[in-house]
Amino acid sequence: MAFEFKSLLSATATTKAEPFSGYPPYHFVGGNIDEPTVPVEALANAVGKVIRTEGHNLAKYGLNSGPQGHLPLRKFICDCLKKRSEIAVKPEEVLLTSGSLQAMDLVNQTLLSEGDVVLLEAANYAGTLTRLDAIGVEYVGVELDSDGMRMDLLDRALSELAKAGRKPKYVYTIPTIQNPTGSVMPVERRLEMLTLAKAYNIPIFEDDCYADLTFSGERPAAIYALDNDQRVVYCGTFSKTIAPALRVGYLVAPWQLMSHILPLKTDAGSGALEQMVLAEYLPGNFDDHVCDLLPVLKAKADALCLALDEHFGASVAYEKPVGGIYLWVTLPENVDTDRLFQAALDQGVAINPGSQWTVDGSANKHRMRLCFGHPSIDNIRKGVAKLADVCFEEFGVPFRSGNIERG
Amino acid sequence: MAFEFKSLLSATATTKAEPFSGYPPYHFVGGNIDEPTVPVEALANAVGKVIRTEGHNLAKYGLNSGPQGHLPLRKFICDCLKKRSEIAVKPEEVLLTSGSLQAMDLVNQTLLSEGDVVLLEAANYAGTLTRLDAIGVEYVGVELDSDGMRMDLLDRALSELAKAGRKPKYVYTIPTIQNPTGSVMPVERRLEMLTLAKAYNIPIFEDDCYADLTFSGERPAAIYALDNDQRVVYCGTFSKTIAPALRVGYLVAPWQLMSHILPLKTDAGSGALEQMVLAEYLPGNFDDHVCDLLPVLKAKADALCLALDEHFGASVAYEKPVGGIYLWVTLPENVDTDRLFQAALDQGVAINPGSQWTVDGSANKHRMRLCFGHPSIDNIRKGVAKLADVCFEEFGVPFRSGNIERG
Repeated sequence: MAFEFKSLLSATATTKAEPFSGYPPYHFVGGNIDEPTVPVEALANAVGKVIRTEGHNLAKYGLNSGPQGHLPLRKFICDCLKKRSEIAVKPEEVLLTSGSLQAMDLVNQTLLSEGDVVLLEAANYAGTLTRLDAIGVEYVGVELDSDGMRMDLLDRALSELAKAGRKPKYVYTIPTIQNPTGSVMPVERRLEMLTLAKAYNIPIFEDDCYADLTFSGERPAAIYALDNDQRVVYCGTFSKTIAPALRVGYLVAPWQLMSHILPLKTDAGSGALEQMVLAEYLPGNFDDHVCDLLPVLKAKADALCLALDEHFGASVAYEKPVGGIYLWVTLPENVDTDRLFQAALDQGVAINPGSQWTVDGSANKHRMRLCFGHPSIDNIRKGVAKLADVCFEEFGVPFRSGNIERG
Repeated sequence: MAFEFKSLLSATATTKAEPFSGYPPYHFVGGNIDEPTVPVEALANAVGKVIRTEGHNLAKYGLNSGPQGHLPLRKFICDCLKKRSEIAVKPEEVLLTSGSLQAMDLVNQTLLSEGDVVLLEAANYAGTLTRLDAIGVEYVGVELDSDGMRMDLLDRALSELAKAGRKPKYVYTIPTIQNPTGSVMPVERRLEMLTLAKAYNIPIFEDDCYADLTFSGERPAAIYALDNDQRVVYCGTFSKTIAPALRVGYLVAPWQLMSHILPLKTDAGSGALEQMVLAEYLPGNFDDHVCDLLPVLKAKADALCLALDEHFGASVAYEKPVGGIYLWVTLPENVDTDRLFQAALDQGVAINPGSQWTVDGSANKHRMRLCFGHPSIDNIRKGVAKLADVCFEEFGVPFRSGNIERG
């Protein structure tokens, strides 16, 4: 009889995975990107070249660069941040991480303990919320409008916490192509956020993972860049611009905080080959690559909106995306996307239910996130049509699709 | 005036890093390997080929293989484990990790909570001890002899815990080229350990990270292979055979445990490029590569022993290594390697003090670990000579070096 591990599991090991059985045919979840845009040939050339010249350095943990990661890539990130986000930092203030998720984990480990409280956008990246749940940190959701987190509501939330004698550990924000709402916070509001952070003497954790994907190629200065008293921690990634499977993200922080973060990165370094290939490929190629990528994503966003308009008509509301790879969709109040999620999955369509992407899950059961980065335009069209069918069967809406009455 | 993060730090963020200033000239610490043996040209060719054929899959988190990592590499690991360690497992029982350290973190997260107790070899990998300290887990050290952990002492320790009403969560062991002692546990003792684990109804966590590096090319069957009731969790790595900076390790566990481990791997996958290049390079090359590597490491081990004999003479005791990349050295009782560590570092020689590599640190202050994988033979000779100088200056031993009296 086999030994039973069950009785030995820790309190955190409560869930159980099912064996992986492949992706559903219509896969509107996850930060996957457009396959044909991965610069395969250029990456292959870059990696061959860099391994031949520097491959012997792989014999050392951290190459020659120490625990913060491959120095040439950190230098490129400094140049890139200066040019694109107006952030002026030195390589000593940059830490290469295994995806921006590790950056988030490190910031949380450094600053958060059970029982702490943070503030964040009320609709948010599910991975942020589950991480905070796992640590036992309370989060206060601040509602958004089309310019991102509302500063009057942030002020109110901060004031209420102060009255209750609670000092939040940070305000977490995705100001540029907010996940899932897609909003881009204007400079004025970023400055307001800094003013509030100063007034309440708290730091800001700025997650800029999608910031390179505004379809116009323009973006406001990062909050990190607008700050003048070292109150902002920042993370970014190459997952959405080059390839998510590479797992190369980065954390930017003033040395006073970085020096406390580094001892908590106990993984003996992030993957070096990925750092080396990006350091070889990105300088001289990154801007052009992003330039080529943006119209592809915009065409997919347009196709998704068109398909929703055609198949859901007046039954959906959304803000037309100005960038990114996801759309936040509001359905009629009677639609429960937790139920829709399961029914759609049974038909091969994967969606993100709104309850998982919001602080107040029960108030957002009629919303969903649809990711359009990976599926082809044809797949988007067919998947949305199928989703409309399932939604009608389950909830009686959309009643009309493409001007034709259902039922 | 800059914002101060200091007052916001969590209880875990107590230490502070210094900026990286490069490696000291004589670097006898860390699991770094021999630079010339990294198969640079073959890796460059393999990675170019695999990116050209499969690079578009980088657009997806987890490629096409789901959360357990690149399926072709998991298949190779199954073949390799069967051949080298007699372990028979399926790809569903293998998880690719960001180095074996992540495997260890995942096992710990799945099984351990604050206040738990585990058993392990009394001289041990410092990273294991610091991790357990961080979780607040108590560890009982079991002394070793030249065949590894002593089973009579393990039995006694288990019996004492049972009397105290405490059930350990696992026995952690590095049975093949134990770190730092270099011992290889014979099959008979592995079977005894399984019998004890069965008698006390506890699992075994087998860390086989150095197992491919026995100089003879021979090794006993893994404990995982000898077990017949799914009580063993196993980890391995390609850090010591191919390159540490690649950060590719693996965890092997029965699905009943693996299914609970997977939800805790929240990093959206380990670096895919490294998994792809290894899946391309290893089949057909791994055995030959290891074969070429072993005499290089053996020559370094010999050089280190010779240098110690020459410069320390009767002032050192050690077991001649049968594999691996480190040597566990006992110095006269009056030598304090914590002090020697600092004095040597000031002279450009880095060593691991025994206090950090043992459960009973204060009883092992006269021991040290010397890693010989990375430095050249010439560097080993010069470094040991320098270390003897420093040791004599600080502690008056070794009194003779190369037949010449000091002082």
